[in-house]
Amino acid sequence: MSARAGIVVTGTEVLTGRVADRNGPWVADRLLELGVELAHITICGDRAADIEAQLRFLAAEGVDLIVTTGGLGPTADDMTVETVARFCGRELVLDTELEATIAGILRSLMARYTGVDFDAVMAANRKQAMVPAGAQVIDPVGTAPGVVVPGSPVVMVLPGPPRELQAMWPSAVASDIVAQAIAGRTVYHQDTVRMFGLAESALAETLREAQRTVGDFSALEITTCLRRGEVEMVTRYEPHSAAVYAQLMALVRERHGSMVFSEDGSLVDDQVAALLAGRRIATAESCTAGMVAARLTDRPGSSAYVAGGIVAYANEAKTALLGVDAALIDAHGAVSQEVAEAMAAGALDRFGADTAVATTGIAGPGGGTADKPVGTVWFCVRLADGTTVSRSLRLPGDRSDIRERSTTVAMHLLRRTLRGEAGSA
Amino acid sequence: MSARAGIVVTGTEVLTGRVADRNGPWVADRLLELGVELAHITICGDRAADIEAQLRFLAAEGVDLIVTTGGLGPTADDMTVETVARFCGRELVLDTELEATIAGILRSLMARYTGVDFDAVMAANRKQAMVPAGAQVIDPVGTAPGVVVPGSPVVMVLPGPPRELQAMWPSAVASDIVAQAIAGRTVYHQDTVRMFGLAESALAETLREAQRTVGDFSALEITTCLRRGEVEMVTRYEPHSAAVYAQLMALVRERHGSMVFSEDGSLVDDQVAALLAGRRIATAESCTAGMVAARLTDRPGSSAYVAGGIVAYANEAKTALLGVDAALIDAHGAVSQEVAEAMAAGALDRFGADTAVATTGIAGPGGGTADKPVGTVWFCVRLADGTTVSRSLRLPGDRSDIRERSTTVAMHLLRRTLRGEAGSA
Repeated sequence: MSARAGIVVTGTEVLTGRVADRNGPWVADRLLELGVELAHITICGDRAADIEAQLRFLAAEGVDLIVTTGGLGPTADDMTVETVARFCGRELVLDTELEATIAGILRSLMARYTGVDFDAVMAANRKQAMVPAGAQVIDPVGTAPGVVVPGSPVVMVLPGPPRELQAMWPSAVASDIVAQAIAGRTVYHQDTVRMFGLAESALAETLREAQRTVGDFSALEITTCLRRGEVEMVTRYEPHSAAVYAQLMALVRERHGSMVFSEDGSLVDDQVAALLAGRRIATAESCTAGMVAARLTDRPGSSAYVAGGIVAYANEAKTALLGVDAALIDAHGAVSQEVAEAMAAGALDRFGADTAVATTGIAGPGGGTADKPVGTVWFCVRLADGTTVSRSLRLPGDRSDIRERSTTVAMHLLRRTLRGEAGSA
Repeated sequence: MSARAGIVVTGTEVLTGRVADRNGPWVADRLLELGVELAHITICGDRAADIEAQLRFLAAEGVDLIVTTGGLGPTADDMTVETVARFCGRELVLDTELEATIAGILRSLMARYTGVDFDAVMAANRKQAMVPAGAQVIDPVGTAPGVVVPGSPVVMVLPGPPRELQAMWPSAVASDIVAQAIAGRTVYHQDTVRMFGLAESALAETLREAQRTVGDFSALEITTCLRRGEVEMVTRYEPHSAAVYAQLMALVRERHGSMVFSEDGSLVDDQVAALLAGRRIATAESCTAGMVAARLTDRPGSSAYVAGGIVAYANEAKTALLGVDAALIDAHGAVSQEVAEAMAAGALDRFGADTAVATTGIAGPGGGTADKPVGTVWFCVRLADGTTVSRSLRLPGDRSDIRERSTTVAMHLLRRTLRGEAGSA
């Protein structure tokens, strides 16, 4: 059995949502790498009773390790160390060596300010040198030291600022106390598969079939989620169950082969970037209005293959900037295969590119008709050799969903066209 | 005493940090507006035992209301309703009316796919129509209904996708069951002030002064945070402390007047949209590569004033598409006041617009020099009457921070120029 852990995030600003917690996910990732199973993250404000309740809860759930973040500062609302000491039944004692370390740090910080009473500051910070008896001190990166308190569970107390917590993590994990707590851990494999064009319920159906037909299926811990229009399946398993995962994947490929675009954790963005190496792409966007260009240039080095793009929001811009015949727009409407193709051709031409992608659609909330309701979007990818692939979709959701989803669809159409697979899209 | 609540966020993808939780903070805000005190947020994976442990913990802590998010989908790892029913000691029963509602929704969704077995999908989704006996159903916005289960505590079960949860919240809160759970609450005022160009520490200094000079200052619960380059200050107070808040705001205006751009909760996006009414804007983007155009068109109705834009990522595109003289780029570099101004002039001209905004900068990680390090960005806003306002900044952070922050700076430069305030920027 694997070691289990819980994370206690303290801080009223986090609880009330004014500041997004970045420590929980970061520590979760580190624990996973160590093969420690994270069972719970709990968040509470700067109140001793609530912090202590969460510590008791996690201990009662039998976790081997609790990591706390936040509440180590010099002010009165910073009470994590004191609360953890009480919870662990240990006295707080002044660590004079630590006090000297903190004084040294403060002295050099103070040097930047004038008129500061160093003794007053030091008095306020003395509480940061009070540690639970028998705990191991983790040297501060800012001014707040961490502590690792032995016991069952072991409690690792770290500061709230992510930069400090992350820098102090390696020493905290290296301590003997933590090593003992997480001994006997199992290291898991984790594999990610991404699919596009698949309903989440169709994958659910496949997983139900796998449950019936794949032996030892329960050795796999599978989670699925819908992200940016893609279905993502993450599977965790112990190394000896690799064959079970292989059987599951054989079934997934058999049923959804053409929709599986990534089995190695890569994103469609990674794949499109690789396919664009040595090429030169231009965009022509109406409803996505720059989101496809922004996404293509999101990664470092994209200037090697992105020439640029035109946001042709108004019809006159489609004509003036992309050379789309106004008569074509009159005849078919701005949201049509003809206009999407003319936009892509215009982008190729104006930028001297060899690859172009175009989007034109109705993002809403207004502008829909019976024929072309809100969510109707035409996409076209055109290459310099004349290859032209067009698709239309009716996307669900609100304006922001439709624009976001359209951007993802454009990326997938690019991927399939550049791989020469678009015929099967 | 005010009603207390806890939030249970379920989902292995959230626990393990693959997806950031957006529901906890959102629900926390709504509870505070309702005068309900949030005590704990707990996060666990898709495991019935862990979900149930968190429900028991919150009940033992005496909360009046538990809100759960996530785990309402059709797949086997969606188990929140079942777990809540067991926790509340209620049978799951098929709600046939709800089943018909879900079937109707699915039928219209399926229309987009071909070769889907509707009966199989419906079977997979039948579990979504199973509700705890005596619970009130909250109609689905996606395909997953919510439920409100009476008892002590009351448990409100909502779906994970933020768009669905947010749309379903008003009906859930309006239910009699919830009303009884949160009776006797204190209603708070909440005011938001947004500042641009201010260091968070300068605001902290002002708040320390307010603590000394404003009577009954402790009646205000203030949180500050830095978001998208803007400092946001949110203050909650009981209605009888409105005068204390007014004193605080007098001090904030006195010290940071020109940086305060919003006291009514409006975003810079709202203000720019209002200022653009009756105008026609075009963008010319290099480092932001479409993000300014995407942000301007984010809101419904923006087609009334957005003509379009040009993403001139490559230098040749700046010349070919925006008419920037190649000699100007050679002389001053692509990241320069001269090129930013020529780009804005080009956008005005090519789109026949009366307002243009241009960005050109070094987003990194490569491309920086001693003179123009990574983060150097030039901005220009130009109006048809010849008004030309240019600014340069050195923005901190990584590629994505620099692009995001540049987009915000462009919005603020637009706002100030259109208000005729740019001289004081």
